[in-house]
Amino acid sequence: MAGIIPSRRIRGTPFSALVEAAGAKAFTVYNHMLLASYYESYEADYRHLKEHVQIWDVAVERQVSIKGPDALRLMRQMSTRDMDKMAEDQCYYMPICDHNGGMLNDPVAIKIAEDHYWLSLADGDLLQWALGLAIGQGFDVEIEEPDVSPLAVQGPKAEDLMARVFGDEIRDIRFFRYKRLPFSDTEFVVARSGWSKQGGFEIYVDGGHYGLPLGNLLLEKGRDLSARVGCPNLIERIEGGLLSYGSDMRRDNSPIESGLSRFCNSPADYIGKREIERQKLEGPKRQIRSVEIDGPGDLPHNGAGWDVYGDGQKVGLIASAAWSPDFQTNVSIGMIDKSHWNAGTRIEVHTKRGVRGATVREKFWI
Amino acid sequence: MAGIIPSRRIRGTPFSALVEAAGAKAFTVYNHMLLASYYESYEADYRHLKEHVQIWDVAVERQVSIKGPDALRLMRQMSTRDMDKMAEDQCYYMPICDHNGGMLNDPVAIKIAEDHYWLSLADGDLLQWALGLAIGQGFDVEIEEPDVSPLAVQGPKAEDLMARVFGDEIRDIRFFRYKRLPFSDTEFVVARSGWSKQGGFEIYVDGGHYGLPLGNLLLEKGRDLSARVGCPNLIERIEGGLLSYGSDMRRDNSPIESGLSRFCNSPADYIGKREIERQKLEGPKRQIRSVEIDGPGDLPHNGAGWDVYGDGQKVGLIASAAWSPDFQTNVSIGMIDKSHWNAGTRIEVHTKRGVRGATVREKFWI
Repeated sequence: MAGIIPSRRIRGTPFSALVEAAGAKAFTVYNHMLLASYYESYEADYRHLKEHVQIWDVAVERQVSIKGPDALRLMRQMSTRDMDKMAEDQCYYMPICDHNGGMLNDPVAIKIAEDHYWLSLADGDLLQWALGLAIGQGFDVEIEEPDVSPLAVQGPKAEDLMARVFGDEIRDIRFFRYKRLPFSDTEFVVARSGWSKQGGFEIYVDGGHYGLPLGNLLLEKGRDLSARVGCPNLIERIEGGLLSYGSDMRRDNSPIESGLSRFCNSPADYIGKREIERQKLEGPKRQIRSVEIDGPGDLPHNGAGWDVYGDGQKVGLIASAAWSPDFQTNVSIGMIDKSHWNAGTRIEVHTKRGVRGATVREKFWI
Repeated sequence: MAGIIPSRRIRGTPFSALVEAAGAKAFTVYNHMLLASYYESYEADYRHLKEHVQIWDVAVERQVSIKGPDALRLMRQMSTRDMDKMAEDQCYYMPICDHNGGMLNDPVAIKIAEDHYWLSLADGDLLQWALGLAIGQGFDVEIEEPDVSPLAVQGPKAEDLMARVFGDEIRDIRFFRYKRLPFSDTEFVVARSGWSKQGGFEIYVDGGHYGLPLGNLLLEKGRDLSARVGCPNLIERIEGGLLSYGSDMRRDNSPIESGLSRFCNSPADYIGKREIERQKLEGPKRQIRSVEIDGPGDLPHNGAGWDVYGDGQKVGLIASAAWSPDFQTNVSIGMIDKSHWNAGTRIEVHTKRGVRGATVREKFWI
């Protein structure tokens, strides 16, 4: 594992001290910030996440704040989703695409006010896209990265822990909805969301200095719930089919290829619509699939991805893979050509540890 | 030193095998790619760079290709430099700014043709800024990241080594000019440029599969010149005042604050011009300075940067620092308030190893 040198360019987060104290053993870099990859091990973290509750430093989900009279107008251009139907307390997962329908990012947007949105980013400086569109068209909006850092509380005991800190009100927050809840001398946007399938919340910590007091309070109140500091888990997110922009799909993929058709429903003339609508009608040439890879769980990290072959031809790429203790198989996410994407199709994956047989599945595991 | 997990999102480069074989000991992440930080040690690499010749994998300087009838029009909007004076074989270092003069990147632009430019990026997805401006205004340009990866050859023996591979023609290339020179069955843009003050070239390797053959040929031809694989060196680049976007300056700094006034000379109505011209007239509130920090070379990496105090007030930030073997002092780059930026002014730097005295200098070291 390569060691990474700290610099001001690779930023810390308001929660870095928690991450260090909890002994994160490996990292990735995401939006110019360090993000823990695991603490005890992928497997131990996974088991704990599925049974208890974890507190995740996901400050790397940097916010782009879009505020001003033209905020909705800009959002309508950028979003594949129907911005006019967005409720006041709603969060939208949304592909954002170029004019050819190529994905530029897939943030979660939060409606802060009628004229104010936050985009909680996947890896990539989407701020520059929004800013370019706004300046290019003379829109009356301010586009900035505010000092807002998400802290996720994930796992089956997340609701109980959150209730101890924010009160029973949090139990009424619906999926991808939020409430503003008081903390110390301020209040935070608290949404029922997060990059796991175990349930939980994301707290948009507005003001970096609140980060450690909040994190420590959650740990303290969660001691008898076995709460610990964690991070998005590679195994669990593959089981759940949660895509990683930059790995599973990129600018050379459309949201339709990425299996995100259901999020492309805007009646507005958004950027990329023509190609996206064409692909919805005619079908894409390749698409995201869950793929089960044969053999034992001794596969190395797949780095740049593994080529997929079928009938002697290259028919896809596996970008994310891991051994699943619960399903006792290698779970993976692939971009598979139409010729081989039907459930049950046998394919070959060219891993760094040799060729493995594999089967395309109907659905993800969880 | 934190370990980093490989993934498709953190991409390899066409030269990764060279980097691995040469035993890079530490990395940073830059434009979603691994970039070596040092091989033997910062000090040993530095000494070698100043005496011999190194081959650097700087594929992280990702290219943004801007091509089409409106390419020059877009470049005029984005660049602080006079695009109409750019010669056919010229490279321009250029700040690119938002409407408030805040820096978004500082690429080197290369004029490939009258209607075609490459921007060789600092860390950050500037492609999205260019794309947003172009789409927002309906410009007729294609904006893409081509499969072009710079390989730098740097050091006092760089010219001799390059002549052995590309012929004596390279000796006639002037600073920040380029020639197209044949290699194998193709040709590359070869510029006299690079992120060191030791002289050298950057080869824009167009086609990833040429990366290893070229790198290996350079190593082979340079055996008696002590050529080795290297990387940008922290000490040498601070001595030379080569700024790192994201560390030394960011969106909250103007090019004038960054000491780049001489590159802000465009007669066009480029984005950010009003504020930049105002700062040129009235002077900025703070500016990049070279700062000599007292005491021994035992300072840790400065991570998020060190606050600078003067007369009991915070008056700046040191974002990059290292011990210089040649100058036997701690060399550093700071953003210093006007009140304390005069050469000779004594200031205090709050390092992680305690408070150190320091002196603002007139110029960088080399």
